[in-house]
Amino acid sequence: MSAPSAARAPAAPLVLREDRDGVSTLTLNRPQARNALSVGLMTELQAALDSIHSDSSVKAVVLAGAGPAFCAGHDLKEMRADPRREAYEALFAQCARLMLSITRLRQPVIARVHGIATAAGCQLVATCDLAYAADDARFATPGVNIGLFCSTPMVALTRAVGRKAAMEMLLLGELAGAAEAERIGLINRAVPAAELDSTVRRVADTIAAKSPLTLAIGKEAFYRQIELPVEEAYAHTARVMTENMLARDAAEGIDAFLAKRSPVWCGR
Amino acid sequence: MSAPSAARAPAAPLVLREDRDGVSTLTLNRPQARNALSVGLMTELQAALDSIHSDSSVKAVVLAGAGPAFCAGHDLKEMRADPRREAYEALFAQCARLMLSITRLRQPVIARVHGIATAAGCQLVATCDLAYAADDARFATPGVNIGLFCSTPMVALTRAVGRKAAMEMLLLGELAGAAEAERIGLINRAVPAAELDSTVRRVADTIAAKSPLTLAIGKEAFYRQIELPVEEAYAHTARVMTENMLARDAAEGIDAFLAKRSPVWCGR
Amino acid sequence: MSAPSAARAPAAPLVLREDRDGVSTLTLNRPQARNALSVGLMTELQAALDSIHSDSSVKAVVLAGAGPAFCAGHDLKEMRADPRREAYEALFAQCARLMLSITRLRQPVIARVHGIATAAGCQLVATCDLAYAADDARFATPGVNIGLFCSTPMVALTRAVGRKAAMEMLLLGELAGAAEAERIGLINRAVPAAELDSTVRRVADTIAAKSPLTLAIGKEAFYRQIELPVEEAYAHTARVMTENMLARDAAEGIDAFLAKRSPVWCGR
Repeated sequence: MSAPSAARAPAAPLVLREDRDGVSTLTLNRPQARNALSVGLMTELQAALDSIHSDSSVKAVVLAGAGPAFCAGHDLKEMRADPRREAYEALFAQCARLMLSITRLRQPVIARVHGIATAAGCQLVATCDLAYAADDARFATPGVNIGLFCSTPMVALTRAVGRKAAMEMLLLGELAGAAEAERIGLINRAVPAAELDSTVRRVADTIAAKSPLTLAIGKEAFYRQIELPVEEAYAHTARVMTENMLARDAAEGIDAFLAKRSPVWCGR
Repeated sequence: MSAPSAARAPAAPLVLREDRDGVSTLTLNRPQARNALSVGLMTELQAALDSIHSDSSVKAVVLAGAGPAFCAGHDLKEMRADPRREAYEALFAQCARLMLSITRLRQPVIARVHGIATAAGCQLVATCDLAYAADDARFATPGVNIGLFCSTPMVALTRAVGRKAAMEMLLLGELAGAAEAERIGLINRAVPAAELDSTVRRVADTIAAKSPLTLAIGKEAFYRQIELPVEEAYAHTARVMTENMLARDAAEGIDAFLAKRSPVWCGR
Repeated sequence: MSAPSAARAPAAPLVLREDRDGVSTLTLNRPQARNALSVGLMTELQAALDSIHSDSSVKAVVLAGAGPAFCAGHDLKEMRADPRREAYEALFAQCARLMLSITRLRQPVIARVHGIATAAGCQLVATCDLAYAADDARFATPGVNIGLFCSTPMVALTRAVGRKAAMEMLLLGELAGAAEAERIGLINRAVPAAELDSTVRRVADTIAAKSPLTLAIGKEAFYRQIELPVEEAYAHTARVMTENMLARDAAEGIDAFLAKRSPVWCGR
């Protein structure tokens, strides 16, 4: 599973993109560094997301990692090599922007997790709209072990799982298995490693068959309403539902349902 | 289990109410339409809730569905028959008001779920204070399948379950079983279908034996404090506890407890 | 297991403190009253927490109960003995301050739960950063049974567990077992009673081996960011991460990690 650096071309992209049937798979591609989120990798991932955001051919996104791990978090060597306040501020701002871009992407993003997902790698899992993992995958927010609490990963972690579970991961810094990650809600499901790709593919294909307009409307409303008091959340989503009903895809979808035929989406 | 329209009287009520021993059971009664929430049904349910709110004889409410399903969500035929913006705005406003009325009802509301609970029907389950389901009941927010994202149902869904679980239901639009609904926190418990009525009855009777004043104080404070920052939540509930302690039912309850006798509630 | 009052000295402390290897264990010590939170006990617990907050020798805190129970909540006899509004206001303000002090304590606090944890005792469990329980421990918010809804306990309970689970505990007032408490997220884990002390000790020792500065930074940020909208939460924690990176313990921790040696914390 290892990918020795000798095997990579000098200018190998740090993020690979492969599109198929409306599903775009983004693969973190620093396998020798367990896909640590260097500035370079984050910059490429940001560019890939920005490109996909306005690409109407993409209906769903899968986020995966090349080599033995999903993602091991920030690149500690790089961080220590430039120990200036300005460098850290820029780094964490870039990382936060990246995470928010996943949440704000028009298309749903599915994490495909194998190996380990630690620190900002665990944050990526928590941030993605959906996450499926091999049953031998492991998760941690281990910053506390190196004196650097996983404070930004915890923003995503605490919004995905309960407080006691989040605190245990953050304070102990230990690896949690995929079954535990499923139990606490960090991932949707752990599956045998041999079934991970087919599971993710089925989920992505299922999503890609929906109206992309409807998905974009729903995803945006999801994260907007969840931060509002319930009465405002209803006021907002009632407006969203009304606009959604007036779109062609809803008329088509409902008419197709009532006529017991398959809908044909036009994306408007 | 089906109820052909020919078998129903012209003016059959769309919501049935039956009171027994302080428990009011409201049964959605459009079985031939799987209790779809037509404007008429929502209007009758709203009226029933409004009536119960000020009815001191009612200590707990059970919400159930007649026929093969708990509730299949909005009435799509009716929605498509009047495709004006004003009609949709009125519909979603009415539905939001209905859901908030359940939350604000003085009495606890228990969902008794069988068959399917989908879209706004799933929202009803998520909105009720408690929910118990037959183990063959199924749940979904399938709007995405017909081009109409379940944006208003998601307000209740995301406040009941974790984000990953909610997103999976919303993006895939697939049916989840009762065991899964219990696992993610959408319902309190799945029980064998033959035990559903006795389970719900026991829960309702247990609640009906409490002081209705205490229940009303607590339920209101529950939804109020949950939207506040923790320090404000404590300030608010400290006031609530003080008022509660000064009420006669608390004095009676505590004195009865200390004297090891049963309390007699006066509702003040 | 009972501790008759005759066996206690007149001035026995209501909270015992024992420090070992950086772990301070605070034991509620009114066993004959199942450690009910009298004004006296809360005053002593507050003083112990205040003292620990600025005690750099303490890295982690364990909260336990002497006798047959962890904690049975407020002292009802005491409450009824002074039924003035001012007394209740002072009592609930004191209790809220105590709970917030646990959350704001620099050191992580671990609940070690056996017997019962009810009402404000259950609130203590929900409030602690982590909680481990004997598998025969039981939990309840039974105020509704005595006419006094557990409104302040519910502030902590609803921030630890899902709404349906919280509502069931609050409305029914029944005892939940340790397995159920684990399932809903009220505790981290239920273990055989014979393993409770070793489990808690391992967790406390693991935490005590971390940088106390890092723990304090992380714990404060945890509760701060969790109440913020996600974008503000990222802005805040990005600042926290930057400050954390500029501290000596992070430089030491990362350098030690990269050099594959153990870090030596200086607490700065």
